[in-house]
Amino acid sequence: MTVLKTKTSETTTPLDTLQSQMAIEMKAVNKMILDHMHSDVPLIPHLASYLIAAGGKRIRPLLTLAATQLFDGDMTRAHRLSACVEFIHTATLLHDDVVDDSDERRGKKSANVIFGNEASVLVGDFLFSRAFQLMVADGNLDILRILSNASAVIAEGEVLQLSVQNNLETTMEQYYAVIEGKTAALFAAACEVGPVIADKDESTIQALRDYGMNLGIAFQIADDVLDYSAERATMGKAVGDDFREGKMTVPIILAIEQATDEEKKFWTRTLGDKNQTEDDLATAQELINKYDTISKGLEIAHSYGEKAIKDLKQAAPDSPLRQIMIDLVEFTINRDH
Amino acid sequence: MTVLKTKTSETTTPLDTLQSQMAIEMKAVNKMILDHMHSDVPLIPHLASYLIAAGGKRIRPLLTLAATQLFDGDMTRAHRLSACVEFIHTATLLHDDVVDDSDERRGKKSANVIFGNEASVLVGDFLFSRAFQLMVADGNLDILRILSNASAVIAEGEVLQLSVQNNLETTMEQYYAVIEGKTAALFAAACEVGPVIADKDESTIQALRDYGMNLGIAFQIADDVLDYSAERATMGKAVGDDFREGKMTVPIILAIEQATDEEKKFWTRTLGDKNQTEDDLATAQELINKYDTISKGLEIAHSYGEKAIKDLKQAAPDSPLRQIMIDLVEFTINRDH
Repeated sequence: MTVLKTKTSETTTPLDTLQSQMAIEMKAVNKMILDHMHSDVPLIPHLASYLIAAGGKRIRPLLTLAATQLFDGDMTRAHRLSACVEFIHTATLLHDDVVDDSDERRGKKSANVIFGNEASVLVGDFLFSRAFQLMVADGNLDILRILSNASAVIAEGEVLQLSVQNNLETTMEQYYAVIEGKTAALFAAACEVGPVIADKDESTIQALRDYGMNLGIAFQIADDVLDYSAERATMGKAVGDDFREGKMTVPIILAIEQATDEEKKFWTRTLGDKNQTEDDLATAQELINKYDTISKGLEIAHSYGEKAIKDLKQAAPDSPLRQIMIDLVEFTINRDH
Repeated sequence: MTVLKTKTSETTTPLDTLQSQMAIEMKAVNKMILDHMHSDVPLIPHLASYLIAAGGKRIRPLLTLAATQLFDGDMTRAHRLSACVEFIHTATLLHDDVVDDSDERRGKKSANVIFGNEASVLVGDFLFSRAFQLMVADGNLDILRILSNASAVIAEGEVLQLSVQNNLETTMEQYYAVIEGKTAALFAAACEVGPVIADKDESTIQALRDYGMNLGIAFQIADDVLDYSAERATMGKAVGDDFREGKMTVPIILAIEQATDEEKKFWTRTLGDKNQTEDDLATAQELINKYDTISKGLEIAHSYGEKAIKDLKQAAPDSPLRQIMIDLVEFTINRDH
């Protein structure tokens, strides 16, 4: 069984290290983000800055910066493309919250609650368009191809997730297709952009893409596991959103695969028929514990993490930055438990 | 006062002529649309084909085809970019229907009613991404700039429309900003693409852009006027959607500008306070008749139409295709009354 590490407030995480390493670069990215959020229609910067000011880890733009610096690429181009990646991410968050009817994001009321679903949909579209304008301003067709393909794959992943929602027959294969689309595709593109900016060879570009893809898969599995974590609940953090929304994620899929007839009835009622009572989350967590599917999920995440590290080692010689990007993988899996 | 022309079923309209002129080209565009609607996630082609099969006039892709053929541009590129333009349009329709909570589109139940708002938002995002992939496949950075700028301006127009909804203070200036964004920007881009494909000079490109912009403004004004047309109501067509949604359009804005105190109270209750009864649409139509704002709206549309014709005549020598594009302007304004 994988042991969960507990993060204390004094620990400097690899993400902290990357953030401080990239502080000056991120300042330029933030300026780019603010400049391109501007519109003569006041509701647009108003809504966009509400979400962007709420923070977030900025892991995707940090990956673009790191992947560019790792190969001595032009950081001015990386600033623009990091902003582009963050815009794509922000647009999907706005639309996700509408689709999931969420009421919280980054510890604040979500934008759809404050500004309405209508505004969230349309400002999401605006940010998405701005992302494309930023790519076009960069002017490299390979990068345009990478990021426009990623956008299409993200949307496909989101639609697939919606299609299998509340469906007990969902397979691990479908689950991987969902998370590769909705999460890992943008991680992969964010990383791939770096060696393309630096004009590296195909195999290096592919290796960085694979690093991002495997890191993204590990990241999303960890996220999905966290949503059922009892440790996390004792820390006062929200759990159970995925259960309430009927999202078919790894802890559930693996528990259903092994369920007794009695347990199948429970899953059918709570997920298939969307008929949940307040105690059901606790029962779901008991069944997840019974089959140890949190640990199994984390083991899968670790195996993707190992692949990501191997990809990165293959692509670039040892350096302090490469080490941070390696450490980031483990941190991504063990965060927040 | 502008006299409304009545279209009989036997008349061949300029749109019919353009459609039959472009029948072979449109077949190629439709194939491109079908091919790029494909996804391994079945809900995507299912939902997209529901909307696309419902028809629609396809006026935007027809404009791209016409504007390319007018300058002897490469029609293979025009096919791809026409499909791209139609994808952008379809994506905005899907999102519009969610935002407006519509239940009908092209005479059928709207996609959000059949498939849910969630799927409409996400499939809209997918089609939007596909549009960008099509542009990237074309590979011309000027065209990428034109169409990505148009996408951002469309979203801005939609957000502005939402911002001024139910606001009696809305000015004609704001109204023009809304329709230039939400409608005319894509008409302009659809036309501008033609001379860019054909590698024409800046002034020709600008003139075609202006033709599309002015045609788009005229088209939207006519659309907004139609929504209050008593003649149209007698033909069994839906009217009053804009009134119920509190959309601030030309017939209303001009009537409010001249309203007596008593009438202002009516507009405040029905639009400002969103407190409507069944008889209110009839009263709104009476007030619109009193100030003759349908005719005034159509006069404005005609003045934009004249500009469009002037732009086109400036850009290209006389030819049968140019004549169809000229006739299309008047038809756009007088359609469906």
